[in-house]
Amino acid sequence: MCALEVKALVFDVFGTVVDWRSSIIRQGKEFGKANGVEADWDAFADAWRGKYGPSMNRVRTGELPWTNLDALHRMALEEVLAEFNITGISEETKAEFNLAWHKLDPWPDSVPGLWRLKAKHIIAPMSNGNIALMTNMAKNGGLPWDCILGAEVARHYKPDPETYQTGCDLLGLAPNQVMMVAAHQRDLLSAQEVGLRSAFVPRPLERGPGRTPDATPDPSFDIVADDFVDLAAKLNMLEGQPAD
Amino acid sequence: MCALEVKALVFDVFGTVVDWRSSIIRQGKEFGKANGVEADWDAFADAWRGKYGPSMNRVRTGELPWTNLDALHRMALEEVLAEFNITGISEETKAEFNLAWHKLDPWPDSVPGLWRLKAKHIIAPMSNGNIALMTNMAKNGGLPWDCILGAEVARHYKPDPETYQTGCDLLGLAPNQVMMVAAHQRDLLSAQEVGLRSAFVPRPLERGPGRTPDATPDPSFDIVADDFVDLAAKLNMLEGQPAD
Repeated sequence: MCALEVKALVFDVFGTVVDWRSSIIRQGKEFGKANGVEADWDAFADAWRGKYGPSMNRVRTGELPWTNLDALHRMALEEVLAEFNITGISEETKAEFNLAWHKLDPWPDSVPGLWRLKAKHIIAPMSNGNIALMTNMAKNGGLPWDCILGAEVARHYKPDPETYQTGCDLLGLAPNQVMMVAAHQRDLLSAQEVGLRSAFVPRPLERGPGRTPDATPDPSFDIVADDFVDLAAKLNMLEGQPAD
Repeated sequence: MCALEVKALVFDVFGTVVDWRSSIIRQGKEFGKANGVEADWDAFADAWRGKYGPSMNRVRTGELPWTNLDALHRMALEEVLAEFNITGISEETKAEFNLAWHKLDPWPDSVPGLWRLKAKHIIAPMSNGNIALMTNMAKNGGLPWDCILGAEVARHYKPDPETYQTGCDLLGLAPNQVMMVAAHQRDLLSAQEVGLRSAFVPRPLERGPGRTPDATPDPSFDIVADDFVDLAAKLNMLEGQPAD
């Protein structure tokens, strides 16, 4: 790998920065308790998340006009409640439950790692989540972003190349000055096609215990790190600075 | 005034959060020393800033396609250098000098005041500066924004109503849940027309000593504060919480 000149790191968020599954299960249980509903909340969380890709694809293919992720989550919630035979929930309660996605807990290393990375680099989400979602999640979880990039400012969902390219343009940086950080290899490979650098941080527990994906990294990634603290150390080393 | 339910505060930046004039004078002197150029840097700073409104108006009227503020500053720099008979400067040096606007010093109360406001509210710039400019300025000056809003995400310069409205939409908030903070009354009045709350923080030294504008506040403003620390205290009081 040639010398890195990374000015900004941009992050996939759901799964990479935050543990969406445990957080949705936790909030599902709270919702159930408050509304007298019993359900398999693990399965409920997986079903809700399962509609994420297909609903974005409806936007990516033009079947739906631009629709932000809050609205897609809300449409998906309606379907999942029906599938789980949960009825009689008020609009207000459903709208409140939909904000569960604004309250996802960071992985334990995320906040300390982001602070280390932020000392010398711009850090920003490059997520399919909309600005309100990302901003509220950051307030709730203490994520110290410098700005919010991603699907909504580009009006394109990942992995459309416009998402990554718009982020670089808005930072005033060339793609090779920007490093994409993700637990998902497809996201990194799509960012690479636009010219971004890549750092793979596997999150083996993203989909719950016993569902560990194959984490063999594509050999093209610039960095493979155990977590964000490790990423900060490895990036410092590659940039010729002491690891801490 | 009826009870406030402010969830987010959005800020004019040039003049309100940062002291652009002193900062540009300081960096003008550094540029002069490094390049062997003598000039009246006070006048130079005023001339450069003087092209701000007219150049944005060329975009607002459609004479120019969407052009971000970095590019408008760069075009203006070319004109100001010519007016001051400063020649023989390389493209690279001019591009670097143009980044002076990314390195404006906050007023002394700005950073401590923003941290107080951030504890209970979303805080974001609602500036005509582009995302890269605002992000780099925040890194340089320690401004703890939660996200970056403003002209570039709206593709409209203030005081176009689209700028303020887009900011509210992207936060997922109604305009009356958002408070505009500015040292410029026209900015506040324009935000009010869209439905935002308003806080006036006069900055009598913005245009230098001896050029104090009339700071008699329009009676419609929700808050008039001496500085950002005072704003945090007054907002807390209006929201029924202890001032500190």
